[in-house]
Amino acid sequence: MPNTKAFDAALAELSSFVAKLSNAIDREQVEKMLGMLMEAWSWGKIVLVVGAGRSGLVGRAFAMRLMHLGFRTYVVGETVTPGVGPNDLLIAISGSGTTGIVVAAAEAARRVGAKVIAITSFPDSPLAKTADHVVVVPGRAKTSEETDYFSRQILGMHEPLAPLGTLFEIGTMVFLDSIIAELMHRLGKTEKEMKARHATIE
Amino acid sequence: MPNTKAFDAALAELSSFVAKLSNAIDREQVEKMLGMLMEAWSWGKIVLVVGAGRSGLVGRAFAMRLMHLGFRTYVVGETVTPGVGPNDLLIAISGSGTTGIVVAAAEAARRVGAKVIAITSFPDSPLAKTADHVVVVPGRAKTSEETDYFSRQILGMHEPLAPLGTLFEIGTMVFLDSIIAELMHRLGKTEKEMKARHATIE
Amino acid sequence: MPNTKAFDAALAELSSFVAKLSNAIDREQVEKMLGMLMEAWSWGKIVLVVGAGRSGLVGRAFAMRLMHLGFRTYVVGETVTPGVGPNDLLIAISGSGTTGIVVAAAEAARRVGAKVIAITSFPDSPLAKTADHVVVVPGRAKTSEETDYFSRQILGMHEPLAPLGTLFEIGTMVFLDSIIAELMHRLGKTEKEMKARHATIE
Amino acid sequence: MPNTKAFDAALAELSSFVAKLSNAIDREQVEKMLGMLMEAWSWGKIVLVVGAGRSGLVGRAFAMRLMHLGFRTYVVGETVTPGVGPNDLLIAISGSGTTGIVVAAAEAARRVGAKVIAITSFPDSPLAKTADHVVVVPGRAKTSEETDYFSRQILGMHEPLAPLGTLFEIGTMVFLDSIIAELMHRLGKTEKEMKARHATIE
Repeated sequence: MPNTKAFDAALAELSSFVAKLSNAIDREQVEKMLGMLMEAWSWGKIVLVVGAGRSGLVGRAFAMRLMHLGFRTYVVGETVTPGVGPNDLLIAISGSGTTGIVVAAAEAARRVGAKVIAITSFPDSPLAKTADHVVVVPGRAKTSEETDYFSRQILGMHEPLAPLGTLFEIGTMVFLDSIIAELMHRLGKTEKEMKARHATIE
Repeated sequence: MPNTKAFDAALAELSSFVAKLSNAIDREQVEKMLGMLMEAWSWGKIVLVVGAGRSGLVGRAFAMRLMHLGFRTYVVGETVTPGVGPNDLLIAISGSGTTGIVVAAAEAARRVGAKVIAITSFPDSPLAKTADHVVVVPGRAKTSEETDYFSRQILGMHEPLAPLGTLFEIGTMVFLDSIIAELMHRLGKTEKEMKARHATIE
Repeated sequence: MPNTKAFDAALAELSSFVAKLSNAIDREQVEKMLGMLMEAWSWGKIVLVVGAGRSGLVGRAFAMRLMHLGFRTYVVGETVTPGVGPNDLLIAISGSGTTGIVVAAAEAARRVGAKVIAITSFPDSPLAKTADHVVVVPGRAKTSEETDYFSRQILGMHEPLAPLGTLFEIGTMVFLDSIIAELMHRLGKTEKEMKARHATIE
Repeated sequence: MPNTKAFDAALAELSSFVAKLSNAIDREQVEKMLGMLMEAWSWGKIVLVVGAGRSGLVGRAFAMRLMHLGFRTYVVGETVTPGVGPNDLLIAISGSGTTGIVVAAAEAARRVGAKVIAITSFPDSPLAKTADHVVVVPGRAKTSEETDYFSRQILGMHEPLAPLGTLFEIGTMVFLDSIIAELMHRLGKTEKEMKARHATIE
C-alpha cells in the first residue's frame, strides 16, 4: 500500500476548502457581478479578463467559457485584445490584490469609463480600491512584497507552494465556473440548444 | 436576498465532486506517477506538459509549480520548448483521451524513448493506450467526436458547458496540486528553505 | 575593428532577399487576397489567423495590425477564438505548406463554408490545395518530413538555422505589413483619423 | 493589372529600410552583444528575452532560435520562466525604450546581478539607461506616451500603423536573425552537424 500522506493531506485540505466556499462567498457580491455581466451581454459590451501567473490561467479558463456563451470576451496581454470604452467590463483577478500589471489594467479601464470587477482575497487591497465592485474569494494568505509580475518572475519569487499557495486559484476557478452555470441559466441557454447550433456543422 | 440558484447548485456539485476525488483516485497510480517524477528529478530529466484548451491551462498551472520546485519543465507549444529524449517525461492531459494533438505528442515522445503519463477520465482511450502509465481522474462524461483541437476551435465545438463540462479540469487541478504537495514532502523542500533561497535577492 | 563576417553575410543575404520580394510576389494573388479581406471587413466577417512556430508569431503580428484596423480578428489556438462559419476568412501560414495543424485548420474552415487563403512557398503543397486562394511567398527551401508541429517540437526538429531557414518568415512579415498599408489606404484610414479616435481617451 | 500602389510603396520602403540596416547598426555594439551571448553559452547561463506586443513576438522568434542552438533560454511572461541570478542575461526589446514592463524587467534583472542588453531605437531612453549594453536598431519614430503595455492595450493605443510603425520590429527581426547566423559560426555549428543530431531520432 503506497504511502502518499502529503498527497492525501493536500487533497483533504483542498476538498475542505472548496466545501466551505459556498458559505464564504457573499451572494450580494455574486448577484451584483452577475448583473454587470448580464448588462455587458445585453448591450454587446466587451468583457476583458486580466490576471498574472496562475490567476491569469484561471482567468483564461473563464474567458473561454464566456466566449462559448456568446460573450465578446478577450484576455489582456493576448494578441487581438481591443481597446475598451464606456461600460465595457474588466474582470481583474489577483489573490493579493497588489499585482502591479493587474492594478494598472484596472486603473486604465476606469480611465476610459469601463467598469471593473475585482476578484481578490483582500477587500482593502489596491486592486479592490480601484474596482467598481469586489467579489471576495478566500484563499490567499498574505500579500506579495514585489508587485510587478514580470519582476517577480525574474526574481524567482512566487506564492507559497501547495497546498496553501493554490487555494485562491482553485477557489476562483470553482467560483467562476459556478458563475458560468448561473449565466447559462439566466441566458436561457441549455446544452441542448447549443448542441443544435453545433449540429449544423457536423 | 438574491436568487442565485444555479450558482448555488453548481458550487454544491463541484464541491461534492472534489470531496469524492480522494476515493476516486487510485493510490497505486499516484505512487507510480510520483516515482516517475522523482526519477526525472534525480536524473535531471525534462518534464514536458501537454494539453489543449482548459486542460492545457491546468497543465500550465502544474508546470509553473514544477518549475518552482526546481524541475526542468516545459509546456508543449510554447516558445522555448526543447526536444526530448530517452527517459524524459511527458505529462499528457486529456479528459476524453482522444484530443489529436495530445495523442500525437504522446506518440512522438514514445518514439524517442521518453516516458508518457496520461491524465484522463478514460483508461481505454487512445491517449491511455499510448502512455506508459495512466492516472484516471474522473469528470469527463463523454468523448469528443472531433479530435483535432484547432479544428474543434474553428468549428466552434467545445465540451458541454458548466458545471458538468468542467469537472475534469477542476479535478485535475486539485489532483496535480496534491501531487505538488507530495513532491515537496519527498524532495524535503519546505516553504522556509525556499524563502531562504529568495531572501538573497531581497 | 570587430570581425562579424557571418553577421554581415546574413544581413546582406536577408537584405537582398527582401529587395527581390517585390518582383517575386504576384500582384494578381495580392489583389485577390485584398479583395477577400475587404469583403470580410464589409460584411463584418471574422478573420482567423493560423500558423505554427515562427510562422505563428508572424501571423500574430499580422492579426494585431488587422485588429488595430478594426477587423474582427482572432488567432487559432488562443483563448477566446470563436468558431467560424460561411464567408469568414482563415489566413493559413506555412512555408512548407505541410504543417499538420495548419492544414487541418484549413480543412475544418472549408467544411463550415469559411474561405481559406494560404501563404506558403509551395503552390502545390497540401495547404495550397486545400485553400480557396494561394499567395506564394518565397523563402522556404524544402518541406519538412514530420508534419505535426507538436511532434516536431518534441522531436527537436526545426527548420534549418539562419539565415536560410528564416527567409520565409521575414518575407511573410514584410509582405503582410505591406498588405496592412494597402488596407489602410483602401479603408481610407489615416494615422491622423486614428489618432483623433484615441485623443478622446487622453 | 491590379492597382496595389500602397502595397508597392510599403514593400519598397521596407526593402529600402532593410538595405540600410547594415550601415545603421554599429559593429562594436554587435560585437559586445555577441561576446555577452557567448559567455552565457560557455557558463551555461540563462538568456531571458522580454518585449511587449510585436516586439515580444520578435523576441520570441529569437528565443526559439537560441533554443535551437542549445542556449538555456526563456521568455519573460511565459509559463516556465525561472528566476535569474548573477551573470544570467536579459535581452530587453523596446523600440521606444519606455515600455513599462520591459523597463521594470530590466531593473529587476540588474537587482539580482544579471546583465541586460537593450535593443531599442533610443540610446537615451529609460530602458537604455538601465541596461549594461545597448544595441541601437533604428525604426521607431517617436516614443509612446503611455508606458504600461497592458494599459496601452486597454486604452486601444498602438504604434502608428504600417509601414512606418513596423520598421523597428522588422529591423530587429533581421538583426537578431543575423546574430543567430554569427552565433552559429562562432559555436562551430553547421546545419549538417545539427541534422546528424536529429538523424538519431528519425
